[in-house]
Amino acid sequence: MRENVIALMEERGITLPAVAELVYELQKKYYEDLSPEICLTAVEAVISKREVQHGILTGLALDMLAEKQLLPHPLQQIIADDEPLYGIDEVLGMAITNIYGTIGVTSFGYLDKMKIGLVGELDRDKSKVNTFADDLVAAIASAAAAKIAHGGKKNE
Amino acid sequence: MRENVIALMEERGITLPAVAELVYELQKKYYEDLSPEICLTAVEAVISKREVQHGILTGLALDMLAEKQLLPHPLQQIIADDEPLYGIDEVLGMAITNIYGTIGVTSFGYLDKMKIGLVGELDRDKSKVNTFADDLVAAIASAAAAKIAHGGKKNE
Amino acid sequence: MRENVIALMEERGITLPAVAELVYELQKKYYEDLSPEICLTAVEAVISKREVQHGILTGLALDMLAEKQLLPHPLQQIIADDEPLYGIDEVLGMAITNIYGTIGVTSFGYLDKMKIGLVGELDRDKSKVNTFADDLVAAIASAAAAKIAHGGKKNE
Amino acid sequence: MRENVIALMEERGITLPAVAELVYELQKKYYEDLSPEICLTAVEAVISKREVQHGILTGLALDMLAEKQLLPHPLQQIIADDEPLYGIDEVLGMAITNIYGTIGVTSFGYLDKMKIGLVGELDRDKSKVNTFADDLVAAIASAAAAKIAHGGKKNE
Repeated sequence: MRENVIALMEERGITLPAVAELVYELQKKYYEDLSPEICLTAVEAVISKREVQHGILTGLALDMLAEKQLLPHPLQQIIADDEPLYGIDEVLGMAITNIYGTIGVTSFGYLDKMKIGLVGELDRDKSKVNTFADDLVAAIASAAAAKIAHGGKKNE
Repeated sequence: MRENVIALMEERGITLPAVAELVYELQKKYYEDLSPEICLTAVEAVISKREVQHGILTGLALDMLAEKQLLPHPLQQIIADDEPLYGIDEVLGMAITNIYGTIGVTSFGYLDKMKIGLVGELDRDKSKVNTFADDLVAAIASAAAAKIAHGGKKNE
Repeated sequence: MRENVIALMEERGITLPAVAELVYELQKKYYEDLSPEICLTAVEAVISKREVQHGILTGLALDMLAEKQLLPHPLQQIIADDEPLYGIDEVLGMAITNIYGTIGVTSFGYLDKMKIGLVGELDRDKSKVNTFADDLVAAIASAAAAKIAHGGKKNE
Repeated sequence: MRENVIALMEERGITLPAVAELVYELQKKYYEDLSPEICLTAVEAVISKREVQHGILTGLALDMLAEKQLLPHPLQQIIADDEPLYGIDEVLGMAITNIYGTIGVTSFGYLDKMKIGLVGELDRDKSKVNTFADDLVAAIASAAAAKIAHGGKKNE
């Protein structure tokens, strides 16, 4: 399933190195020797978790179906318009972030609010429906940052 | 939007009185004067919340799209088969239950595990995809039970 | 209980107008006619919810007990030091924010990360243990902002 | 920290084999070759996670402080009486369960509602304050069951 998830992410404009850049932004001030490679490895570990994969597959499917106008009314309009009061994108994001504990919620909210890096690019790209995509990216990056903060396997 | 939600629920075999019956089952031992009407009123209040409506619309849409084989691979198979390790149905359920605080989580898990009333009927009806439907019903009933437990507006 | 909660908050340096200022910061760009009074009313509504009160009472009690060195080892050290990997403060914060749906999680993370206004003051005040206090303030403000965004009772 | 957590659990009447028994009850119908050893190993893995340890330490501390009457009013009464509308015990439980994804929420609610095994013993033991203890046990057992269901490392 991992390969399906990565392929689908790339199809939707989400590459793992771009997600890893967000992790680097989040964690660089805490770790002198943090490298893009460490961040990429953490992102790869996050998307190897089944629960994370399910969240990504579900969210991106909803974006794609909204793009093809295949969702029932009124959900079609709500997702196509990225209606600000629709919170199910955040719900999926939180389910991903929670896998590495709640310390990730702060980063998730921060990335999502400040529209940093790829999160902002997805949010501004009006050629596609990215209602779930930007929250999923923020969630994966936050989970990876939490994984690094928890020190990998040290105390787990 | 409330009317859309109720219509969609009925189309998927979910009537408000059947949900209210679950609420009655959950709460009857705590309240001598509990009536089906009180339970129905609580269910109606729950499905009037926007966040709840968004959860219902999203979950039922995924069930319907799986039924029409319109979901991308491998999500199509996962939802069509109600794959036990797929947890996004519980994620949506919890988002609904949480609106009335976490005391509802106990009832949610109980209804879902014991497949009581309409939850069990939906789970056993193999003519449809009800991967999300049974969890949504358990969540709405648990939220309504929590609302009754919190004493309506008394202390809110 | 509401009066106990407000008194305890004030004792810990958290006044409702200071929380309302955060709400104003969060929401001013979306509402031309937003006033400090509207924000204060929303904060008051949030802290009238029983689940919110329970979260506040529990978090502030833990801060106070840590200050008095009354917590068992090793929790005493973890909370007294505001250990970055301790996530139970965020757990309580999220339980509060979730009452108004998940759209609040973004604001919660943003306030917590950027240490805005009272959140930052509490975080920097080393004369007290404020491990829970800053997250509780961020959570209450985010919940109140979500309440305003949901338009009060309009669609609820 | 792991040793501190196990010692504190035992002090509060929670032994790992008793928690493992709950895991066995939850999962035996799904796995022919499930053994008490497999369940115990899963429980040990769960309590090795830092987020889980923080949840256990915090919840048991609150039980112990309530027993010693050291909590501020009105929280002292709420926790000492295991007030049914107090949901922070479920909040901590969910934070633990979520680490292994949301499929555990069903088991958590079921164990908590049906008061099975050690959960029921703790709930009925009125010589101690076990407001958090029973939910923590239900949460650890549910997380361990979810870990087994996810098949260990197979797809993670």
